[in-house]
Amino acid sequence: MRLLHPPNVEDLALGATVLGTGGGGDPYLGKLMALQAIREHGPVPLLALDEIGDDDLVVPSAMMGAPTVLIEKLPQGDEILHAFRALEAYLGQPVRATMSIEAGGLNSTIPIMVAARLGLPLVDCDGMGRAFPEVQMVTHTLYGIPATPMAMADEKGNSVILNTVNNRWAETFARSITVDMGATALIAAYAATGRQLKEAAVPDTMTLCETIGRTIRQARADKRDVVEAVRQRAGGFRIFHGKVVDVQRRTEAGFAKGEAALEGIVEDAGRRLTIHFQNEHLAAKLDGEIVVSVPDLITVLDSDTGEPVTTEGLRYGFRVVVLGIPCCDKWRTPAGLAVVGPRYFGYNIDYRPVESRFG
Amino acid sequence: MRLLHPPNVEDLALGATVLGTGGGGDPYLGKLMALQAIREHGPVPLLALDEIGDDDLVVPSAMMGAPTVLIEKLPQGDEILHAFRALEAYLGQPVRATMSIEAGGLNSTIPIMVAARLGLPLVDCDGMGRAFPEVQMVTHTLYGIPATPMAMADEKGNSVILNTVNNRWAETFARSITVDMGATALIAAYAATGRQLKEAAVPDTMTLCETIGRTIRQARADKRDVVEAVRQRAGGFRIFHGKVVDVQRRTEAGFAKGEAALEGIVEDAGRRLTIHFQNEHLAAKLDGEIVVSVPDLITVLDSDTGEPVTTEGLRYGFRVVVLGIPCCDKWRTPAGLAVVGPRYFGYNIDYRPVESRFG
Repeated sequence: MRLLHPPNVEDLALGATVLGTGGGGDPYLGKLMALQAIREHGPVPLLALDEIGDDDLVVPSAMMGAPTVLIEKLPQGDEILHAFRALEAYLGQPVRATMSIEAGGLNSTIPIMVAARLGLPLVDCDGMGRAFPEVQMVTHTLYGIPATPMAMADEKGNSVILNTVNNRWAETFARSITVDMGATALIAAYAATGRQLKEAAVPDTMTLCETIGRTIRQARADKRDVVEAVRQRAGGFRIFHGKVVDVQRRTEAGFAKGEAALEGIVEDAGRRLTIHFQNEHLAAKLDGEIVVSVPDLITVLDSDTGEPVTTEGLRYGFRVVVLGIPCCDKWRTPAGLAVVGPRYFGYNIDYRPVESRFG
Repeated sequence: MRLLHPPNVEDLALGATVLGTGGGGDPYLGKLMALQAIREHGPVPLLALDEIGDDDLVVPSAMMGAPTVLIEKLPQGDEILHAFRALEAYLGQPVRATMSIEAGGLNSTIPIMVAARLGLPLVDCDGMGRAFPEVQMVTHTLYGIPATPMAMADEKGNSVILNTVNNRWAETFARSITVDMGATALIAAYAATGRQLKEAAVPDTMTLCETIGRTIRQARADKRDVVEAVRQRAGGFRIFHGKVVDVQRRTEAGFAKGEAALEGIVEDAGRRLTIHFQNEHLAAKLDGEIVVSVPDLITVLDSDTGEPVTTEGLRYGFRVVVLGIPCCDKWRTPAGLAVVGPRYFGYNIDYRPVESRFG
């Protein structure tokens, strides 16, 4: 067990955005919410997976919807507590800890806020090792942990509890409700015991996020190559060096969908990379061929500052380096690829691990 | 208290379709479900409103969605019990009776099935005195009774519990979930005490339905004019005598919407009536002018048999008589008209009671 103080949260939110692969929400907003809660309620205990009791109930807390909308509709914090408590009341037993369902600027820090305000510890893990756009896309699904009962809440005071026959149905209903709630909703779902999580969760994600964030901060202070430092720390590969020349984005069925076109510069001059996204980056096409795809991570970094750029932050003229980072091994099984592989998202290709092409 | 036996249910289902104003579902299907439950579990006690205890909890049970779809997707009965029990569990207190939320072929008989299977009495009332298409359109809303907690269930085993800040939000969320569930869902909502219902509900609706149904049956047996017998019994007015020449219908956002065009025959030869519907008949336009509108009832009867015709039963060539029937007085207040008046449905006219034009 260790305590998360404000400096830990600063690093964690920054590093989580690298693993957020363009989605997971704005790190600045997420950080503010978590820092304010820690200032008011004190630092948050972070437990390693093996420190939680086998029978302790852990409930993840998160934001769902289009991050583009969230920028104009910052959660006040009460909605997520509302969702969390609605689920606890429904379950009829005390929740011992919360956790992140995914890595990402906002969804890594919302659970810190929840933990601080409810006096609960946070578990050092997540359900993706990155961010994905849909509810069922968590390692919990691969280990038979149901998404429901799932509580959802909005800022108006509405809340919903879902009970579905599988996690894909939870996504269907939750997406409709999210759209009705104004394209973002706060959720509590995937209640699981410590015993279940030790098998099903992606371990040590919070610490990895913090380490990556610290790496960025230190490389900047030392005036080293920040992009290269991130690449090494995250175990990734350089895919492309380019300039953003076009971004098409639309809010569709509660998702931020679109494409970003990059023109190569320096060593990639004359080449072109297109990144397709649905909240998160799904596939990167180099000169028309997909060279990195889900479930591997596609991360865009500002080439000068090393700052990770989310899809809603992508702007014409940005000079960026695109990294490909191997995903958690749990996703590389046939069962994992059925849930988050390229074919699920409509790309008619077999998944090819990023290191097999760029390693 | 009296008992509803199969012959009562036959009459009730038929008469409810007159008050269903084109919606509320198919009386044949509804009747079958209720009759089978009574055969298996015995007759259902029907309590007058003043026979329920002030503190007894009453929970209405109903089908939501497009009746056109329901014909191909008959509920098995277990879904509604699932919704009912989910709500009871959520409320944490025993439900003493069920009731119809609206009059209509199916929504008058589903509560009979629920009552028979759960061994509960049915209360002789409803929330509309007719059928309306949206969740918030019940007299409960006028008396401050919340729709939520509201349970919804489908035939696959999915269920949802809604908690909303007002009854219009319950409609929004429930409609989306209904669409996701395949355009029909079974619901339990508007839990209320006997004390609340004595003030808020439309009294004696079940008995009125049964009386109208018996009138149809007896007039047929006596070879009297069935349409005229129904008109007298329901206290309505003859609006039009015509032949169906066109029906446009579409399933839109979980509703069956459309228009039926009628060409006048006999005394109405040379005139034209158009009926607009959204599950239920909303407005009747005679030669281009709206002459009857919500909240008054527009009922279409087969001119020969007196059989009420639902919107999904309307077919080219049908010869029908259209009746206008005054609605319950509770709807004729400014608060009532704000919820179910013509302007709510997009007709830019003031409501004019049907008897003021045809009486």
